[in-house]
Amino acid sequence: MSSALSDAERKSLARRAPHLRWIQLTGAGVEHLFPFDWMPPGLLLTNCSGVHGPKVAEFATMALLMLNAHIPALLTAQRAHRWDRLASSRIEGRVAVVVGLGGMGSAVARAARRLRLRVIGVSRSGRPRRFCERTLPVDRLTEVLPEADFLFLAAPLTPESRGLVGRAELARLRPGAGLVNVGRGGLVDEAALARALRRGELAGAILDVFATEPLPADSPLWDTPNLVIVPHVSSDDARAYMPRNYELFFRNCRRFLDGRPLLNRVDVRLGY
Amino acid sequence: MSSALSDAERKSLARRAPHLRWIQLTGAGVEHLFPFDWMPPGLLLTNCSGVHGPKVAEFATMALLMLNAHIPALLTAQRAHRWDRLASSRIEGRVAVVVGLGGMGSAVARAARRLRLRVIGVSRSGRPRRFCERTLPVDRLTEVLPEADFLFLAAPLTPESRGLVGRAELARLRPGAGLVNVGRGGLVDEAALARALRRGELAGAILDVFATEPLPADSPLWDTPNLVIVPHVSSDDARAYMPRNYELFFRNCRRFLDGRPLLNRVDVRLGY
Repeated sequence: MSSALSDAERKSLARRAPHLRWIQLTGAGVEHLFPFDWMPPGLLLTNCSGVHGPKVAEFATMALLMLNAHIPALLTAQRAHRWDRLASSRIEGRVAVVVGLGGMGSAVARAARRLRLRVIGVSRSGRPRRFCERTLPVDRLTEVLPEADFLFLAAPLTPESRGLVGRAELARLRPGAGLVNVGRGGLVDEAALARALRRGELAGAILDVFATEPLPADSPLWDTPNLVIVPHVSSDDARAYMPRNYELFFRNCRRFLDGRPLLNRVDVRLGY
Repeated sequence: MSSALSDAERKSLARRAPHLRWIQLTGAGVEHLFPFDWMPPGLLLTNCSGVHGPKVAEFATMALLMLNAHIPALLTAQRAHRWDRLASSRIEGRVAVVVGLGGMGSAVARAARRLRLRVIGVSRSGRPRRFCERTLPVDRLTEVLPEADFLFLAAPLTPESRGLVGRAELARLRPGAGLVNVGRGGLVDEAALARALRRGELAGAILDVFATEPLPADSPLWDTPNLVIVPHVSSDDARAYMPRNYELFFRNCRRFLDGRPLLNRVDVRLGY
């Protein structure tokens, strides 16, 4: 189950499936199921957080190296038939601020460490985390933005995280910084991002997710300079995605039958 | 010394610099110095092979991941405002054929192994090499081309290597394969490559080097589908390039003063 329910379906679920006790999602995001008023009391909801890890780690490695090597700007130069020899140095020692430290964000932080970047984590709790030299709660995000060479968004979309990176946050980034978003489009104010890129207030961005998907053909984002558009494929492994989902499902089945707590239970209050 | 000598300079070098015994180049390629008839007998010529290694390893990691994730095709779709969800799987286990196993090629082979690719090396001698599960001499290149997911060129340009990858070689690659060239533009028949990309006989290519540099504004390559153009910056580290060159030069100075063999001596007969 990964597409939105109709209103009628939401309202009637308890009546139509009175014995339903558990739903396992094949996706990680649950914002399409908001609000959770359709959930009968006691229904368990689990997602596939963690399934994306290995694939998104490769995407993160690639995206960080692309930003460091000025690839978004070089692609913009290519469109204009312009030979701009933008030099770069090795990525080691640069700073990645990773927002969201769930299944995807942890994999991103690990990938960044393997490239010998310094990683600053941002999460709801701000608790110390592996691969992060320090971790801050999300309400202190603006504090660390000036340090970022790369701002990497891997957070879920919740009422709290919507519009997390807007004009004010983008203005705190250094002009040489780059942004990646593999979380959800709604985390970023797309108009403000496009404006910052056009003005050179940000060196480049790689977006895998968008407020509206598929991105409409007339969206100004397609032609925004120094912006690479990836059509929401960063984390889905064509070969391994469903096998990894089944594996998780079968592990949860065993737990369900044994009466043990399920993996990846969605917290309905937090929205992820 | 890294730019071409005029004819007059070539002819008069022995006369103008009768005590000159050694030239250390700050680049790796020497094809701009062909033919070597300007070299007085006994003059030592050394290049900076190896200086590019760490930077080109990062570029190789990025380029291989980009090809595996269909980034060249996605960028072509972006230009057309087209949301094409090209799925991919993890890169592990894919096959990279690396042509040229000098300073750059060894670094490429190592980077590919770190991504858990299978690496087939191609060199002049075909001698077994670290990071390569097997190594073939260059005259057997066509044999291994059908196995390649990625063909990675890191060879010098010599009379033998010019046009190494032409129409016949491209036809031996699988339609899903990708090509990277960080060696010299003259290794590849650019017209044949553009044709293969336009026809979908090759999935993508990332070129850092071109037959003519800077690439002229009216070159058809700029708009060739599924082709990423990098303006010869893959291997030069903006921060570390000259320090690494100086380090090599001082090591060679010590060897020169001690009468020991110099590092990176160019073999005038082989042309690299």
